[in-house]
Amino acid sequence: MSLTNSSPLEVAKAASISSRSLAILPTRARNDALTAIHHALQESKEEILAANARDLESAIQAAQNGELSQSVLKRLDLGRKGKWEDMLKGILDVRDLEDPVNKVTLRTRLDDGLELERVTCPIGVLLIIFEARPEVIANIASLAIKSGNAAILKGGKETTLSFKVISTIISNALTNTLVPNDSIQLLTTRDVVASLLDLDKYIDLVIPRGSNELVRYIKNNTRIPVLGHADGLCSIYIHDDADKDMAVKVLIDAKLGYPAACNAVETLLVHQAALATILPDVASVLLEKGVSLRCDTMSKTSLSSSLSKSQAAILQDSTDEDYSTEFLGPILAVKSIPTLGNSTPSSMCNLAIAHINAHSSKHTDAILTSSKEIADQFQSGVDSACVFWNTSTRMSDGMRFGFGTEVGISTNKIHARGPVGLEGLMIYKYHINGTGQVAGDYGAGGKNWKHEQLPLYD
Amino acid sequence: MSLTNSSPLEVAKAASISSRSLAILPTRARNDALTAIHHALQESKEEILAANARDLESAIQAAQNGELSQSVLKRLDLGRKGKWEDMLKGILDVRDLEDPVNKVTLRTRLDDGLELERVTCPIGVLLIIFEARPEVIANIASLAIKSGNAAILKGGKETTLSFKVISTIISNALTNTLVPNDSIQLLTTRDVVASLLDLDKYIDLVIPRGSNELVRYIKNNTRIPVLGHADGLCSIYIHDDADKDMAVKVLIDAKLGYPAACNAVETLLVHQAALATILPDVASVLLEKGVSLRCDTMSKTSLSSSLSKSQAAILQDSTDEDYSTEFLGPILAVKSIPTLGNSTPSSMCNLAIAHINAHSSKHTDAILTSSKEIADQFQSGVDSACVFWNTSTRMSDGMRFGFGTEVGISTNKIHARGPVGLEGLMIYKYHINGTGQVAGDYGAGGKNWKHEQLPLYD
Repeated sequence: MSLTNSSPLEVAKAASISSRSLAILPTRARNDALTAIHHALQESKEEILAANARDLESAIQAAQNGELSQSVLKRLDLGRKGKWEDMLKGILDVRDLEDPVNKVTLRTRLDDGLELERVTCPIGVLLIIFEARPEVIANIASLAIKSGNAAILKGGKETTLSFKVISTIISNALTNTLVPNDSIQLLTTRDVVASLLDLDKYIDLVIPRGSNELVRYIKNNTRIPVLGHADGLCSIYIHDDADKDMAVKVLIDAKLGYPAACNAVETLLVHQAALATILPDVASVLLEKGVSLRCDTMSKTSLSSSLSKSQAAILQDSTDEDYSTEFLGPILAVKSIPTLGNSTPSSMCNLAIAHINAHSSKHTDAILTSSKEIADQFQSGVDSACVFWNTSTRMSDGMRFGFGTEVGISTNKIHARGPVGLEGLMIYKYHINGTGQVAGDYGAGGKNWKHEQLPLYD
Repeated sequence: MSLTNSSPLEVAKAASISSRSLAILPTRARNDALTAIHHALQESKEEILAANARDLESAIQAAQNGELSQSVLKRLDLGRKGKWEDMLKGILDVRDLEDPVNKVTLRTRLDDGLELERVTCPIGVLLIIFEARPEVIANIASLAIKSGNAAILKGGKETTLSFKVISTIISNALTNTLVPNDSIQLLTTRDVVASLLDLDKYIDLVIPRGSNELVRYIKNNTRIPVLGHADGLCSIYIHDDADKDMAVKVLIDAKLGYPAACNAVETLLVHQAALATILPDVASVLLEKGVSLRCDTMSKTSLSSSLSKSQAAILQDSTDEDYSTEFLGPILAVKSIPTLGNSTPSSMCNLAIAHINAHSSKHTDAILTSSKEIADQFQSGVDSACVFWNTSTRMSDGMRFGFGTEVGISTNKIHARGPVGLEGLMIYKYHINGTGQVAGDYGAGGKNWKHEQLPLYD
């Protein structure tokens, strides 16, 4: 791991070359490097948190000047409850996961003495561009090393001090391991991003972690594939048969657990029959906790007659734009799913699905219902990375999924979707082990293919 | 399936909407549509081949005027031996493959009554842009329907007549099936590509099939992920312990089986000790069959003393550029791997690996050796989609791999690599089925995650 001042081209070439050595290191060597990083960070906790506190001070100043949003501020704070412990635990969790390299995922006998195998291997060189989250350095370094990928990391200006301290510590820790020095490189110089994005010959995947603007800028300026971690416009649909207490509990968690997170809920869809039975309790608790509710006419009318006068008075009217907005704060857009003369549970669910497919960012959406049939319909119909039944959208997270830690939550529809752990950093290659057979031996007038699926090795 | 004159935006929106219905169609309905397409094409063989013959006539004229390459010409000909039969058989092969939709590929018990599942689903909307291969229409329509993806197809001008006939036949065949009409759309109007490439809101994946220039143009002009089917700069390395007869047989197949194909060999690497023992027979046969050999100094000197005078006279000198060129014709670049004082089999193999990783297009490379250890080293070290041992690079093909047919051979390093069949057109979503648990229940001071892997369903 090196803090480098080399040119972008030199950095990318060095990463590409070292990726070949890293890719063939044994499991043990990669795991030992993670142990070394964990110990080194643990021993330097105070130094790191002090640097982070200084980053935070500058950021608070910037926020007061209106140059930085509150949500960025929250993401920056490594001293936030549980964050440091989660970061450290994530490194060991990743280390202790099964080695994702060299797994045979397909075996086919093409013919006698001619076997096809599909074998997992690292992608090669990752470019990670992140803004405010300092823990990303440790997360990504762990995932990259464990998966055998070289990584180039470019941090944002808000995290400069945290970034420098953490990277120096990791760099020193890696010196005594077999992981090649250039396989993790940290860039602190500015204005290198544009040059790096042009180096598709050496860089195989770009992972931006930050604002939608950052992701969009990158997608517009590179031929390299982008693992986009973009908006989280998450919705929850309350069907009329949902459990009321569950709805209250789930909405509190989904809206208030960490409002700046991408898996926080932003839109609440409510079955018309639940407007009077379930929504009042949900709305009352959320209002009490300081959430602004932006309601469509039907839900506002209904709530106005069931809430206390003081709560009814602070209900807001929604605009169309509210249903396409990631608030990242204590605001929730509420929309009714109206019943018509011939509405069925299934047709109501279809209306909710249609709203979500038209408005959501395909990140995470959830349904609350007591019917398995309706839940199945919702999970099959909603085109999002995560579609949950009777739980909070906040469950959408690599650690919670058991992936150790995550490289981000992908709203892409190819390669890796949803929380991305080690598997998202792998690709595969095909081996054929033959005994001199050639393509011309087969087909019209020649031999037939066997195409027999073989069991995978344990 | 419709031949449409709608605007690109209308086409993309219609594809997106119909993709949602197609995605939830049962297996049977998608298979029935493939049967209908197969029968309709079979019945119209003469009409299609007649249209293709007219396309071919125009293309021959264009080739004579130097406006079209010979390799494009060969790809255009649907009447070429076995091509029609392969196309038709491919449709039924795809139909008879296991349904790739709704397969559970991961199950984790997060906690009691809280289960995570990863379920395969279609990507959504594919945009396929192809140049000269008319059979692509049938291949892609089959793969798209089977995998539950909507597709927009844009053909090249060389195939206009074949394209129109085939698409009208497929369109009529689909009328009586449950596959929504807009789920496969064919565009014949020109200048729509640029507009389509901007519609990342509706189109999820672009698959260009054609020249490197086409692929590069598309990668430079879209935010949509591209499944690149680009160069095939394939190499074969002859280790000193290779079997001579096998080497002759494999090289004839790899160079001459179909020289215009992307899986044809373009570079031959030869262990110094094999220059006098194996290369002469290989070179002699290839020269006899009209292949030009572009040799480095060492291989040329060696061959000059072992070949007949007349054959030695037609050996050519290679330039550096030859080792980075996809000839797509009867030319082969030959390069020696020189032994030094302390060379070992393993160090020689590493030199071959280094040459390939620096020059190949990461498509398909092969080694001929009698040593499993050296073959393992080569397969692990070469960073290509397909790395073969003792067989021809021409084995790199979806049909030969048992995938039914293929959407292309990907030189990408994410999502799908090598021959891409149905699996490359799938993504997944995560379901969680809970009973009211929320994220805040877990972690510091709360419950622990179980993260217990559960067996997959059969």
